Amino acid sequence: MEENQFEVRTDLAVEAKDMYVEKDESKEEQIEGVVVSEKEIGRVKVTNVEVDEVGAKHIGKNAGSYHTVYSDAIKKQDTSFQEETAKVVTSQLLDLMSKNNVAQDASGLIVGLGNRNVTPDALGPLVVDKVLVTNHLFIHEPQYVQEGYRKVATFTPGVMGVTGIETSDIIQGVMDKYQPGFVIAIDALASRSIERVNATIQLSDSGIHPGSGVGNKRKELSKETLGVPVFAIGVPTVVDAVTITSDAIDYVFKHIGKEWREKDKPSKALAPAGLQLGDQSLSEEDLPSLEKRQKIFGMIGALDEQEKRALMQEVLTPLGHNLMVTPKEVDGYISDMAHLLAQSINAAMHENINIDNFAQYTR
Amino acid sequence: MEENQFEVRTDLAVEAKDMYVEKDESKEEQIEGVVVSEKEIGRVKVTNVEVDEVGAKHIGKNAGSYHTVYSDAIKKQDTSFQEETAKVVTSQLLDLMSKNNVAQDASGLIVGLGNRNVTPDALGPLVVDKVLVTNHLFIHEPQYVQEGYRKVATFTPGVMGVTGIETSDIIQGVMDKYQPGFVIAIDALASRSIERVNATIQLSDSGIHPGSGVGNKRKELSKETLGVPVFAIGVPTVVDAVTITSDAIDYVFKHIGKEWREKDKPSKALAPAGLQLGDQSLSEEDLPSLEKRQKIFGMIGALDEQEKRALMQEVLTPLGHNLMVTPKEVDGYISDMAHLLAQSINAAMHENINIDNFAQYTR
Amino acid sequence: MEENQFEVRTDLAVEAKDMYVEKDESKEEQIEGVVVSEKEIGRVKVTNVEVDEVGAKHIGKNAGSYHTVYSDAIKKQDTSFQEETAKVVTSQLLDLMSKNNVAQDASGLIVGLGNRNVTPDALGPLVVDKVLVTNHLFIHEPQYVQEGYRKVATFTPGVMGVTGIETSDIIQGVMDKYQPGFVIAIDALASRSIERVNATIQLSDSGIHPGSGVGNKRKELSKETLGVPVFAIGVPTVVDAVTITSDAIDYVFKHIGKEWREKDKPSKALAPAGLQLGDQSLSEEDLPSLEKRQKIFGMIGALDEQEKRALMQEVLTPLGHNLMVTPKEVDGYISDMAHLLAQSINAAMHENINIDNFAQYTR
Amino acid sequence: MEENQFEVRTDLAVEAKDMYVEKDESKEEQIEGVVVSEKEIGRVKVTNVEVDEVGAKHIGKNAGSYHTVYSDAIKKQDTSFQEETAKVVTSQLLDLMSKNNVAQDASGLIVGLGNRNVTPDALGPLVVDKVLVTNHLFIHEPQYVQEGYRKVATFTPGVMGVTGIETSDIIQGVMDKYQPGFVIAIDALASRSIERVNATIQLSDSGIHPGSGVGNKRKELSKETLGVPVFAIGVPTVVDAVTITSDAIDYVFKHIGKEWREKDKPSKALAPAGLQLGDQSLSEEDLPSLEKRQKIFGMIGALDEQEKRALMQEVLTPLGHNLMVTPKEVDGYISDMAHLLAQSINAAMHENINIDNFAQYTR
Repeated sequence: MEENQFEVRTDLAVEAKDMYVEKDESKEEQIEGVVVSEKEIGRVKVTNVEVDEVGAKHIGKNAGSYHTVYSDAIKKQDTSFQEETAKVVTSQLLDLMSKNNVAQDASGLIVGLGNRNVTPDALGPLVVDKVLVTNHLFIHEPQYVQEGYRKVATFTPGVMGVTGIETSDIIQGVMDKYQPGFVIAIDALASRSIERVNATIQLSDSGIHPGSGVGNKRKELSKETLGVPVFAIGVPTVVDAVTITSDAIDYVFKHIGKEWREKDKPSKALAPAGLQLGDQSLSEEDLPSLEKRQKIFGMIGALDEQEKRALMQEVLTPLGHNLMVTPKEVDGYISDMAHLLAQSINAAMHENINIDNFAQYTR
Repeated sequence: MEENQFEVRTDLAVEAKDMYVEKDESKEEQIEGVVVSEKEIGRVKVTNVEVDEVGAKHIGKNAGSYHTVYSDAIKKQDTSFQEETAKVVTSQLLDLMSKNNVAQDASGLIVGLGNRNVTPDALGPLVVDKVLVTNHLFIHEPQYVQEGYRKVATFTPGVMGVTGIETSDIIQGVMDKYQPGFVIAIDALASRSIERVNATIQLSDSGIHPGSGVGNKRKELSKETLGVPVFAIGVPTVVDAVTITSDAIDYVFKHIGKEWREKDKPSKALAPAGLQLGDQSLSEEDLPSLEKRQKIFGMIGALDEQEKRALMQEVLTPLGHNLMVTPKEVDGYISDMAHLLAQSINAAMHENINIDNFAQYTR
Repeated sequence: MEENQFEVRTDLAVEAKDMYVEKDESKEEQIEGVVVSEKEIGRVKVTNVEVDEVGAKHIGKNAGSYHTVYSDAIKKQDTSFQEETAKVVTSQLLDLMSKNNVAQDASGLIVGLGNRNVTPDALGPLVVDKVLVTNHLFIHEPQYVQEGYRKVATFTPGVMGVTGIETSDIIQGVMDKYQPGFVIAIDALASRSIERVNATIQLSDSGIHPGSGVGNKRKELSKETLGVPVFAIGVPTVVDAVTITSDAIDYVFKHIGKEWREKDKPSKALAPAGLQLGDQSLSEEDLPSLEKRQKIFGMIGALDEQEKRALMQEVLTPLGHNLMVTPKEVDGYISDMAHLLAQSINAAMHENINIDNFAQYTR
Repeated sequence: MEENQFEVRTDLAVEAKDMYVEKDESKEEQIEGVVVSEKEIGRVKVTNVEVDEVGAKHIGKNAGSYHTVYSDAIKKQDTSFQEETAKVVTSQLLDLMSKNNVAQDASGLIVGLGNRNVTPDALGPLVVDKVLVTNHLFIHEPQYVQEGYRKVATFTPGVMGVTGIETSDIIQGVMDKYQPGFVIAIDALASRSIERVNATIQLSDSGIHPGSGVGNKRKELSKETLGVPVFAIGVPTVVDAVTITSDAIDYVFKHIGKEWREKDKPSKALAPAGLQLGDQSLSEEDLPSLEKRQKIFGMIGALDEQEKRALMQEVLTPLGHNLMVTPKEVDGYISDMAHLLAQSINAAMHENINIDNFAQYTR
């Protein structure tokens, strides 16, 4: 089996880094040119992946900063936790803007990528619908513009399957006319992990390739090609059947591994039947050894992560069964995530909008 | 009262022509540089207004051909009549394309003007959602393109109040990249007559001014400025309170005029109470003389059409009561009209789609 | 002309009272059995009309309390004013509930009347989508129900044109099974005044007649017929062409009356041309006397409000031109009003939800 | 592991029958009290499962007729194939109605189960929106009802999580008032197979349990409990992660089994690398024997279908990862399926609507 033929593409830098490490278990966790740091802000976890040109070659992502925000506020339908998450997203976006020397009065173009009529792909257009737009006021009614706001315009290019035109061409055409000081593009992504769906927000300054989210590689829009900073905000909203299956097999391994590890522990042996003790979650250390995995799942147990996915993909794709799926509750999740991101962007754009008042600027 | 201050703008050439005639009753119906002809195709009426440069100055519309299709198929919710109407729209569009020497294989850009989130203004985007797009197939999968199709792309620029960018700038930016052989722009209009709302479709080759439909005058997009033919398809979907009131006062005049004319007719005198005899509609000849109108409505009866509207506008506008309204059933009307126009455009674009099979190409 | 043939029906008690007074100018403002009081709460005006059995016969509305809240917070798209208005609506609803001795733990059924697929008629269903529902938790998961909540269920019966079944039958069928302690029904109404559209919220305890809002009279649902209090919350969202025209003619009368009254005032005479001085609004006292109206406006000037509307209706209805219209911005107005009312209802239903935290319970 | 604890519930009789057979491989395909027959109508496959009281106990489904229509017309977005499928659905519904002696003039109540605001669960409400409703015309405007139509009413009860009331209570309440001659209930289901999602339509006369589609067992509505025939039309629109994983593992088993079977075939040996020969699909006979499975796939290979699913469910459910998912294209699939079913129902309801003209009665 050719190794790269079925290699799994990912839009998330944290996944790309993990994949690189998984490929060869002998490799160090520390990758040359890739610096990873983590922190927790309240209930929200943030991972920062800094990739230089050397690291870019290793993990197959552009050089740049990737800030990944983890929060299950949307999935838990917890509105105050959603506000808390929005504040973290605002701070991460401001951090990226500051790293890229975006001036206080630089004008922004917020681009909503994706297909408005396919709910899990509609995140970008829905965010843009809720972003506060000021550019036309600066031009046509400057008397109504207070201090503390910058020029913001928005734009929804559509997708090539609907317009018939390369999305990157449309964006470049509009930028030739509007000439913003920076671009923020919002897009729905595919995830390599079911846990990350609607629970991860990646912010980066490494540019975008419109259309890549659904398997196509189109022309890149980045600081290099456009001359202005291009920030991307991506949220995984779909997974494929290969991911679900691969994740599930891993959970089975870990579950059985944990059972084995714990079976002689007195606490478990003495616990009344049906009583769940302690943490129910599974961790990497629950994963049994290769030998044991092979016992559970034969030759499939012997495959590493990449090989297992490649096999699944080889089997499912020609049958038409490697479909992209999304949680049944997609309408509510996407709507709430759009609200969260629009709040975050509004607060990051304007000095006058901040974490205490952003709710009233966002419908 | 300054005459032009409150002059009523109209997007429809037939209305502009009528307004010109109304302004001075001594004027001939025949206007220099404006040739009007009418025909009926089944239940559908078509008016053709040809305006040259001289006529353009008289009626305040660009020179060009204006084909106006009248049909109450939408308001009557009669689906087979809607198909009949769609066929007439196709023929009128093909006629305009032929007049402008659009080649069989010229590529088309279909632009859906208007605001997707305001139903009566969403006609353009909704039409574009249903148009058959082929351009990307010609480029990326030419092996799947049969004979009998041309390259078609679509685009939805949004409105300045939402994007913050001039709509004409966005369109020009996209055209610089896509370079179509011709443009078709669909837009919702305001009407000067409540009867025309959702019952009139104007097709013209005289270019567009995005945004003009709601009272702004923006940069023009036309053959002159873009170098390729620009066809506009406009449908009135809203009227203002001035129009409703002015129309209603006219109906009162005609109603009373007809009563007076008919009061001594034996047929009416002898008819059983409540029995409606003959035609209930009112016509121009029912309008009483100036003197009689004055008797009915005093000084207001003495005003001509323009003056009456100007007075209404002067009174209602500062009170905030000259609002734009739309029929309560707007959702259904706009959805049906979008379907009708998408069918018409699909049939006009491709040799392989015609009046017998267009339904199956349009969702 | 038979007086009642064209009599204009209204859903608002304040309009019914005004109509009664208008009918005969000799009548006192004070109607037997009808007590009217007004107050202002911040920027919000509240009119309270108490109708007893005697008053009911005069003004053609059921006996009961009618609280009418006036606020243009929706039309002004002012979100903090909308919250202020929601608080007033909550207080009025609590007041009505208290008058009707609704117990702290009485269970409520919130009914969203109207047609979900016709935007200006969708207010009821949209409110119900946002109301906090607790009844099933009390029954199936009582362990999760905290103190300070009552049982609330919701229901959307549809309209007869869509279901084929009398709406009142559907509601009664559901009530036979659920047996709530009280009912709150939300409905979109037609208004006799364009100013009141989306700016008036009527709360009453006099029952409802589902379907009456669009011209039909169906079976009544009230405390009398159902045995439990039935509160109605109604918002005018449409007007007919007769109303727009009649309002506009009135404004013209008043405008000209005001011009006359003021023409010799020094302030006006000395004001620079185009400078607007003082209040631009028109009031009842600007209306010229009958005699003057007749002199200026001929026979139409001589008609009273009812006669003028009756004439318009007689003319427009057979022509199919007395259509119901709604402001062009209907989508946004209805969505905001639904949010406002859902907040108000949620706060009135549960002790634990109040004017300070209702935003977080309403999506 | 207790056998029934994790038993997978299914809404489809064909799945229930397969599960029964799978449980014990020694069992005959022929189950007592269950008669299965298959036929093909053009490109559409129909399976008929007749279950009597004895069979009901075996397969855990109510006694009755279950007609299952298989067609991938929706997934292929092939509109003419969709019409072909609609005709087959009509014929199956008429067949069930005839078996249950539904009279030509019996009145029907069409109930759209499910949650309108969750797209994959909105099928029922969306179908009902498109069904031709006639009951109110028979009652209020009988003069407009032609021969060849029956009384049809519709109803959308909502779901308990939204209304707070048992769905079966709401339906019974409405039936007490409307008293139809028969009921047709449309619902979105969960499938035990990813292939069946949006590709299977089950029609049955064995009653419904509203809410069962998402894991709850509520009160049954059937001929037995209501006294009139209750037809259910169900379409699987979601699967859970367990199903996707279990299906995928099966495909891997079969894929590897097929490779082995074919590895010595000359045709394959001589084929150029990468050339795909013949049929790519996998069949039951590609599944390796239990012994071989165990050898290749370890302990998981030794589990039968039920045990494998039970294990997955045991692992994924406590982690919150057995989520229900739906294909990314859910919006388009559900909209097309609703159109297909509404056409089928309209044609089955009225003599005057048939397979040649149903398109024009369905929006």
